[in-house]
Amino acid sequence: MKHFAWVLALMYCVAPFPAPAQDAKIESMSGKTVLVFSPHPDDEVWGAGGTIALLNQHHNRVLVVLYTNDDKGSYDPEMSSQRLARIRKAEEEAAEAVLGTPKENISWMGYDDGMLEYAPQPKLVEETTAIIRRVRPDVLLCPDPGEWYVRWHKTDHRMAANNTVDAVRAAEFWLYFPNQRLEQHLEPYLVPLMYFYYTTAQEANTWVNIDTVMPLKLEAGSKHVSQFEPAIIKYRPDWDPADWAKAKKEITSRQPQKDGHYMEPFRKARGFNQE
Amino acid sequence: MKHFAWVLALMYCVAPFPAPAQDAKIESMSGKTVLVFSPHPDDEVWGAGGTIALLNQHHNRVLVVLYTNDDKGSYDPEMSSQRLARIRKAEEEAAEAVLGTPKENISWMGYDDGMLEYAPQPKLVEETTAIIRRVRPDVLLCPDPGEWYVRWHKTDHRMAANNTVDAVRAAEFWLYFPNQRLEQHLEPYLVPLMYFYYTTAQEANTWVNIDTVMPLKLEAGSKHVSQFEPAIIKYRPDWDPADWAKAKKEITSRQPQKDGHYMEPFRKARGFNQE
Amino acid sequence: MKHFAWVLALMYCVAPFPAPAQDAKIESMSGKTVLVFSPHPDDEVWGAGGTIALLNQHHNRVLVVLYTNDDKGSYDPEMSSQRLARIRKAEEEAAEAVLGTPKENISWMGYDDGMLEYAPQPKLVEETTAIIRRVRPDVLLCPDPGEWYVRWHKTDHRMAANNTVDAVRAAEFWLYFPNQRLEQHLEPYLVPLMYFYYTTAQEANTWVNIDTVMPLKLEAGSKHVSQFEPAIIKYRPDWDPADWAKAKKEITSRQPQKDGHYMEPFRKARGFNQE
Amino acid sequence: MKHFAWVLALMYCVAPFPAPAQDAKIESMSGKTVLVFSPHPDDEVWGAGGTIALLNQHHNRVLVVLYTNDDKGSYDPEMSSQRLARIRKAEEEAAEAVLGTPKENISWMGYDDGMLEYAPQPKLVEETTAIIRRVRPDVLLCPDPGEWYVRWHKTDHRMAANNTVDAVRAAEFWLYFPNQRLEQHLEPYLVPLMYFYYTTAQEANTWVNIDTVMPLKLEAGSKHVSQFEPAIIKYRPDWDPADWAKAKKEITSRQPQKDGHYMEPFRKARGFNQE
Amino acid sequence: MKHFAWVLALMYCVAPFPAPAQDAKIESMSGKTVLVFSPHPDDEVWGAGGTIALLNQHHNRVLVVLYTNDDKGSYDPEMSSQRLARIRKAEEEAAEAVLGTPKENISWMGYDDGMLEYAPQPKLVEETTAIIRRVRPDVLLCPDPGEWYVRWHKTDHRMAANNTVDAVRAAEFWLYFPNQRLEQHLEPYLVPLMYFYYTTAQEANTWVNIDTVMPLKLEAGSKHVSQFEPAIIKYRPDWDPADWAKAKKEITSRQPQKDGHYMEPFRKARGFNQE
Amino acid sequence: MKHFAWVLALMYCVAPFPAPAQDAKIESMSGKTVLVFSPHPDDEVWGAGGTIALLNQHHNRVLVVLYTNDDKGSYDPEMSSQRLARIRKAEEEAAEAVLGTPKENISWMGYDDGMLEYAPQPKLVEETTAIIRRVRPDVLLCPDPGEWYVRWHKTDHRMAANNTVDAVRAAEFWLYFPNQRLEQHLEPYLVPLMYFYYTTAQEANTWVNIDTVMPLKLEAGSKHVSQFEPAIIKYRPDWDPADWAKAKKEITSRQPQKDGHYMEPFRKARGFNQE
Repeated sequence: MKHFAWVLALMYCVAPFPAPAQDAKIESMSGKTVLVFSPHPDDEVWGAGGTIALLNQHHNRVLVVLYTNDDKGSYDPEMSSQRLARIRKAEEEAAEAVLGTPKENISWMGYDDGMLEYAPQPKLVEETTAIIRRVRPDVLLCPDPGEWYVRWHKTDHRMAANNTVDAVRAAEFWLYFPNQRLEQHLEPYLVPLMYFYYTTAQEANTWVNIDTVMPLKLEAGSKHVSQFEPAIIKYRPDWDPADWAKAKKEITSRQPQKDGHYMEPFRKARGFNQE
Repeated sequence: MKHFAWVLALMYCVAPFPAPAQDAKIESMSGKTVLVFSPHPDDEVWGAGGTIALLNQHHNRVLVVLYTNDDKGSYDPEMSSQRLARIRKAEEEAAEAVLGTPKENISWMGYDDGMLEYAPQPKLVEETTAIIRRVRPDVLLCPDPGEWYVRWHKTDHRMAANNTVDAVRAAEFWLYFPNQRLEQHLEPYLVPLMYFYYTTAQEANTWVNIDTVMPLKLEAGSKHVSQFEPAIIKYRPDWDPADWAKAKKEITSRQPQKDGHYMEPFRKARGFNQE
Repeated sequence: MKHFAWVLALMYCVAPFPAPAQDAKIESMSGKTVLVFSPHPDDEVWGAGGTIALLNQHHNRVLVVLYTNDDKGSYDPEMSSQRLARIRKAEEEAAEAVLGTPKENISWMGYDDGMLEYAPQPKLVEETTAIIRRVRPDVLLCPDPGEWYVRWHKTDHRMAANNTVDAVRAAEFWLYFPNQRLEQHLEPYLVPLMYFYYTTAQEANTWVNIDTVMPLKLEAGSKHVSQFEPAIIKYRPDWDPADWAKAKKEITSRQPQKDGHYMEPFRKARGFNQE
Repeated sequence: MKHFAWVLALMYCVAPFPAPAQDAKIESMSGKTVLVFSPHPDDEVWGAGGTIALLNQHHNRVLVVLYTNDDKGSYDPEMSSQRLARIRKAEEEAAEAVLGTPKENISWMGYDDGMLEYAPQPKLVEETTAIIRRVRPDVLLCPDPGEWYVRWHKTDHRMAANNTVDAVRAAEFWLYFPNQRLEQHLEPYLVPLMYFYYTTAQEANTWVNIDTVMPLKLEAGSKHVSQFEPAIIKYRPDWDPADWAKAKKEITSRQPQKDGHYMEPFRKARGFNQE
Repeated sequence: MKHFAWVLALMYCVAPFPAPAQDAKIESMSGKTVLVFSPHPDDEVWGAGGTIALLNQHHNRVLVVLYTNDDKGSYDPEMSSQRLARIRKAEEEAAEAVLGTPKENISWMGYDDGMLEYAPQPKLVEETTAIIRRVRPDVLLCPDPGEWYVRWHKTDHRMAANNTVDAVRAAEFWLYFPNQRLEQHLEPYLVPLMYFYYTTAQEANTWVNIDTVMPLKLEAGSKHVSQFEPAIIKYRPDWDPADWAKAKKEITSRQPQKDGHYMEPFRKARGFNQE
Repeated sequence: MKHFAWVLALMYCVAPFPAPAQDAKIESMSGKTVLVFSPHPDDEVWGAGGTIALLNQHHNRVLVVLYTNDDKGSYDPEMSSQRLARIRKAEEEAAEAVLGTPKENISWMGYDDGMLEYAPQPKLVEETTAIIRRVRPDVLLCPDPGEWYVRWHKTDHRMAANNTVDAVRAAEFWLYFPNQRLEQHLEPYLVPLMYFYYTTAQEANTWVNIDTVMPLKLEAGSKHVSQFEPAIIKYRPDWDPADWAKAKKEITSRQPQKDGHYMEPFRKARGFNQE
């Protein structure tokens, strides 16, 4: 099946799907439901944290779904997976709180860190499809499933990207996982608008100015203390101010800029099959 | 194993494989066996329908293999998968009839729509290898397994592309799936020439002028009525003339052109391992 | 988890990992442990054979790991997989001997040719991780997991590339496959430096001049006689001089050159997650 | 790990688990939470329908979980899977209503009929474990995972039996699927008492007199009209009185009896590892 | 779904299925289609060879399907899998010829010896279902999927037994693998009668007197020379008369007897779900 | 392939396999290599600990292989899997030391507790086969793969039993996993004698008097302190004497006896396919 864009356009008039926010800029939306998928606690902060802060400030309802529990990424020889999962969950809640997302808007799919690629397929798509059909977001954010991801190793990032878009497709057609409708009363849903973060500069088609919320983004990032030296090497729950100063400087220097403004790049897309 | 092109060249002199059609243009071939793999009913029409029509007109034997039954892609809440599979099969036969391919040349691998990625591996390659060894095509068409496919979500299209080329490789060496030779009397076969459709403009290296068969391509496309609005939303087996007029216009406008001619782009390749 | 380069930089000061060879050129290293992963016997020769010869000449310890046994790639109708595996193993040992790698430095993971993609996951990563944690290489070589690999069909090459880099990541964190530490006494290990072979010209960032060892590379290549015509069609263990002359000419003409020098291109990388 | 019965006995004093209903007969329990797993709509009616009716009459809270949607078992050539799933769901709700189980106490795991054996493992155990940890039943009913099941073909029945008991084991120890506790707040739970239905006469150790509820069981069975001739051959939603008379007679004659009483046989068990 | 025997009985009057051969003894049937599934070449000879000979003598149409190619079971260090598969195929054809089954009635599913347990599921059931729907046998023979099989190790035998009966069940209902009907024109089929060989004495309910064909059975067995000492240790295609005399004596002494007659024991069954 | 016992008998004269210890009783063997497979640390102690002590006393070489790390079985809410694995490993080494097995004779396959059923297949068989081919035991001990195991839930015990016997079969024939011979120099091996522990009384055919080593067995059992109350509920590394007295009494009372002697029951078997 090859999708024609105009089919989608017609869909919004005919089928019981919401019309896409016509050219509304993401940084000025309000009253929308925004669903953010993140492979690990922290990815959505680095990739779209400023935008999330803006969306919350503008009275949108932001929901964050974490694919994995991030229970492997520590160099501390005394760390255990269960303890690390607990730490990462608390950090995630603290970070999102800074961006304005309440704790009850965060949900966890419960996969192990680094193992998303090996999660049972297509069960993973089925679960993600159910989330989309239940939340029915006006806007969906996830890592970019685009071309440049293959340069990376095989990883949770690529899997989270591909799987989310696969679920966007499945969510439209009720005959994918029909028991969701027959037994769970989940109706099909067409996601009208997607913004892909962790896109590359040459792929980005949308840049969001995050100057006003850059301090929030940095503070949110600081909550993920266990992901940074020295806590990643020997866990401690807090920062030595000097360490944070150094980390902050590094993070700031890596934030993309345009014309002297801090920007978050996205690839904006409609329809699951854009060429 | 790294293949050297000249090994392949030598092969044709020595091994019991057909020599590749020396620079023959696909649009002027005749008397050849052409094997077309398509992920769903309709993909080969949009991607190569004009070329298929030309091949049939020029007395080639065109065989079409459908990976899936396309039993999910409807927005109609009353549709069932079994009914949709029936509809799509009838549409495919009607469309290919317009292009000149007889019904008995169409075969179905029987996978469910959207689930090709999750079909048991390497069983899928084994089945596809058997088809190639049985048909022994002079030319093989399938979606492009090339670079740009990764921009897409994980899908039947990418899987059909990769799997077909993987089977092209396996088909050459009898020690892949040796029971096909030992028990089914299927000898190894080296596919001499491939044309990849659904290629991108920057990847295409072959353009086929389809001016003379553009009306046939459009008519074939019209047979896939259930893939278009309004039948995709609420099934009906026929077109309202106004709807078809609109669809036809849209399809026509999206057909690639060059110098005022309707063209189908392909990436032509020899050998499974081209860099 | 998003890796910041400076985290890695700090790591070398703090954690029990070796500091990366600071800007040392691979062609002038000595005293290092070099771990080379190859999908099949012969891939590392074509992709990095000159560099391997230089590394051996400079008193590095080169270890070669073969993913598969290459037991399918013959057109000889009388060949069996077990016999072909024996032949390919002997050829590999002979070829590496020419490059200076002793037989006891070659090890075999034992997967079947063409089936690496279908090996059980994440078991394959787990095994590769154990190899890295045991060998603790200063430098690791493997096929490039980069962007251009997707143009290829689904294959051992892509799988070997992706899987190796995935194992490089897992090797760093002891909570991946913790039984390796708890039960096998394998400590985590951060690979400080990687060189990807089979990279494309537009991706390469490192070129190694192999003029002085080009004869060795050719001789090593000649040991893989069963991969060439005529032995690939009807097995014979040796070359007719005329056949080798032709093959040698072809191989030589395909070796990349720069400014009149024979070169091996690589993509050099640090950290598993380079963008 | 080999379980000693007395460990379990001690557990009830020490750990935060409920003490098992000391020798209480299932037919005279009240105020308990009873969790019933059934492979398909109707199995729990034939295997334990009378007991379920008694449990509901005695003010227990009965919850029924269906593994599959039973969407294959019709000889009607016009039936589709989606339609059959709808029919079977309505029948199940009607049948359980007769036995006194309210509709909101019925939940569906959503697997396809006949495919439970092939559901992704251990995902299926993980989901079942979560159900047990959430419901925290005093008594659990499921098909007998005992010896005689192997005489049967490979089937949903055997899989539902084995999988449920496997989940009973996993539910006890929080380190199985620890994210259920860390992220979903599901605490471990030790099921104190199990009754296996579909047991054989020689295995049964508990017999429940269902004389008083035999009419209810028959009426509940009659709701599963699509499972009987003639509706299984050509669907109709209701019974011809003559057909039901014949079916009723047959069902009645097959209900096990003891001393002139209608009985439901069970194998009662404590602990997951009984020898 | 729990099957009631009378449902099946009714089926034969109403649905387009053949009525089961009413109490006809297998040894006196004629004009029937008999489908025999065997895990390896030779199993059906040891388990039911006499009965097969009788069936052929009585003008039934016997079809034999081999699950695997038996390409592993040799102690000969010079043997290869491809060669062994060739040998076993020729032996099977020779053995069945002795029993009266023509070569064209033998077909091969092409799985590797000892690997049936690991064949992709439910693909294996799907393929077996298609065979049953195509052949539409009056009688089906396969190894006994009954209780005692679990005493054995995990093996092709148990898998062939369970899988065949699972396919018998699936074959009845068109909604299992509906593409077989929609695309391959294979209608559902209810197998009316099954005889399980390799049953145990305590499970057998049918004994076939094979006195008259015992010489044929022995001769058929002798064709499987590579399965016996000395050819299993060092392959030779023929027997030393002394070796065959010894083997024949051993085989004869192991053939079950009753009242001085050579007998083949079976478990006869109707319906897939017999308790 | 159906094995005839006499084939095996002949084998020992002809092939390079050891003749089985002719009727030697296991309790009086000496100078043998004994390979013990255990699903978890502790199973081989409960099932065969006395016999292991006798074997060590009689100067046999006992090697113990643990399938899993037993990292789940604790009710302690503060326990982590990595910590539990460490505890269980130390306990196992202490327990086997009591029985006379040195630490270096214990090896770990590294699978997670409760997940053996879901380990990649047939990889698990392949690894177990390599162990058998490397150790080349005179006697092999493992849980009984016999009939009564199916009464249990799906579990590591059943999987360890089935998988070990499956590997015993594969180990005989070099064409199973031929790379083990071609690349690892592991020759095929026929296990001459097996003793299955965890057998049921009605299945046992061998009883070993362990009166003299019963104190050692109890002491070995006491080392598995974390498997008992109270340490299983709240971990402590040692026993309160009163707790151990109670546990000891319970264990002693559960040890099978015959004629006033403590006995360990086994099912002794030769050949992998005993009926």
